[in-house]
Amino acid sequence: MNDVKEQLGIYARRAEEVLRSQLDRMQSACTGMDIDTLFAAMRHSLGAGGKRIRPALVYEFCRVCGGALEQADAAACAMEMTHTSSLIFDDLPAMDDDDLRRGKPSCHKAFGEATAILAGDALICAPFAVMAQAEGLDDAQKVELVRTLSVLEGESGMVGGQQMDMQFEERDDVTAAELETMCLGKTGALMAAACRMGVVCAGGSEAQREAAEEYGRLVGLAFQIIDDVLDVTSTAEQLGKPIGSDEESHKTTFVTLLGLDGARERAAALTAQAHGALDAFGDAQFLHDLTDLLLVRVQ
Amino acid sequence: MNDVKEQLGIYARRAEEVLRSQLDRMQSACTGMDIDTLFAAMRHSLGAGGKRIRPALVYEFCRVCGGALEQADAAACAMEMTHTSSLIFDDLPAMDDDDLRRGKPSCHKAFGEATAILAGDALICAPFAVMAQAEGLDDAQKVELVRTLSVLEGESGMVGGQQMDMQFEERDDVTAAELETMCLGKTGALMAAACRMGVVCAGGSEAQREAAEEYGRLVGLAFQIIDDVLDVTSTAEQLGKPIGSDEESHKTTFVTLLGLDGARERAAALTAQAHGALDAFGDAQFLHDLTDLLLVRVQ
Repeated sequence: MNDVKEQLGIYARRAEEVLRSQLDRMQSACTGMDIDTLFAAMRHSLGAGGKRIRPALVYEFCRVCGGALEQADAAACAMEMTHTSSLIFDDLPAMDDDDLRRGKPSCHKAFGEATAILAGDALICAPFAVMAQAEGLDDAQKVELVRTLSVLEGESGMVGGQQMDMQFEERDDVTAAELETMCLGKTGALMAAACRMGVVCAGGSEAQREAAEEYGRLVGLAFQIIDDVLDVTSTAEQLGKPIGSDEESHKTTFVTLLGLDGARERAAALTAQAHGALDAFGDAQFLHDLTDLLLVRVQ
Repeated sequence: MNDVKEQLGIYARRAEEVLRSQLDRMQSACTGMDIDTLFAAMRHSLGAGGKRIRPALVYEFCRVCGGALEQADAAACAMEMTHTSSLIFDDLPAMDDDDLRRGKPSCHKAFGEATAILAGDALICAPFAVMAQAEGLDDAQKVELVRTLSVLEGESGMVGGQQMDMQFEERDDVTAAELETMCLGKTGALMAAACRMGVVCAGGSEAQREAAEEYGRLVGLAFQIIDDVLDVTSTAEQLGKPIGSDEESHKTTFVTLLGLDGARERAAALTAQAHGALDAFGDAQFLHDLTDLLLVRVQ
């Protein structure tokens, strides 16, 4: 597990370096526009940290398919920009209304709501510009990266999952199947995009692309189920965030629907499936370890 | 001028047909997700009308470069989705706080702010999915469409212009050069994208792509200058919207900076340049007429 954490750190630093150089490039293309505030807002949210799991998945799936990390830089950067844009919108007063994001003021708290919205818009667009202008990829790869991200980010993926999540707050009859569909969209879709995009960057086969996408979906869903379990069983210290929040808000969770044991069993079954999806790849030790790290949450 | 209006109508109906069929396709891909509200919000804003100038520019630049209209359908649809997403965000309480858009309730008034934000997000992503999956275009064309739209929509284009516009409201020392830079971003960039994308769809030369982009930029800027002139000289009846709003809000406009005659002269010079940019194309009568229609605003 130490090896996987160390490697995650290496990928995170690489992604942060690429993000920085892309933002520098973007900002120098805006000379004379006097929009430093917009860039400050984008950099603030991109710099707020986190484990950079999505770029790591892009890099590692590229590596296990025989690609060089350079080939995955644009897609890794695109994934983190996309993820960050979704966090900026999530935190807005009309959505989750969060003042803090990873201990720092959320984007609209620091820069005002209008600038936060424009920063979020810019961070939805930028990934497509970055990928369309990537070096070391052919046009077929670029088109497939754009298709993958836009489809899995949009209404049939992440955005659709967010819409379902919002609507579920007003219902008390949500089923486990509906909750899974929502989580597959809200969390699984971008994880699936990251994994598939890594394979695409390396020029991996369609079978590998599908296996990677499936792995991402399974890990994303299992992650959400374990989140619900930990909200009940963990201490705030272990979790690094307040516990019991789901019960307080009377939210329908996998634990309220399946019970604690049922939720654990479902997560274990999905984890086993995720490990199985990795059979399509040689040298997948890091991915097996990452799966366990994400899903056991040994901090 | 009747011919150009008639042709605009034909293009508008074609774009609306393509939008409808794309939305139907997108919605059927979301079966089981229970996000009809999200689609209703997207359809509400896409259906709010307007002249569909951007799709018309895509179609016409494709045609004058010898392309078939079928080749331009995806890009035309993408342009209108992008434009619509920007209107949804513009109308939000944190931005312009508009309850009405073309006489109908704005998206957040009809569907709530959270759904409006998600509909806006989805309509930023969808154009890239539509273009990546377009029929009848090769991968090089698709990459160039994606690059063009994402760059001209993002921080160095429309979004950057919106940020400048917002910041200008808090300043009383804005110069005419700054105002032009802002309008080139806020309005010119998407017009430029539409024109260039039409050429790309037809496989036109790089010289034609650049001329088309330049034409779009010039028309977009001239349009904004004339908007400022009409706000002073027109009657509400002629304009179809309240007049004198700029003066009431003490806004810096091309008229306050250049005077009425100066603003008219600048618009005339830009219009002449726009006509000149059309020299790169044969059979550009419709575009010449459209330029005059847009810039003279004979309703």
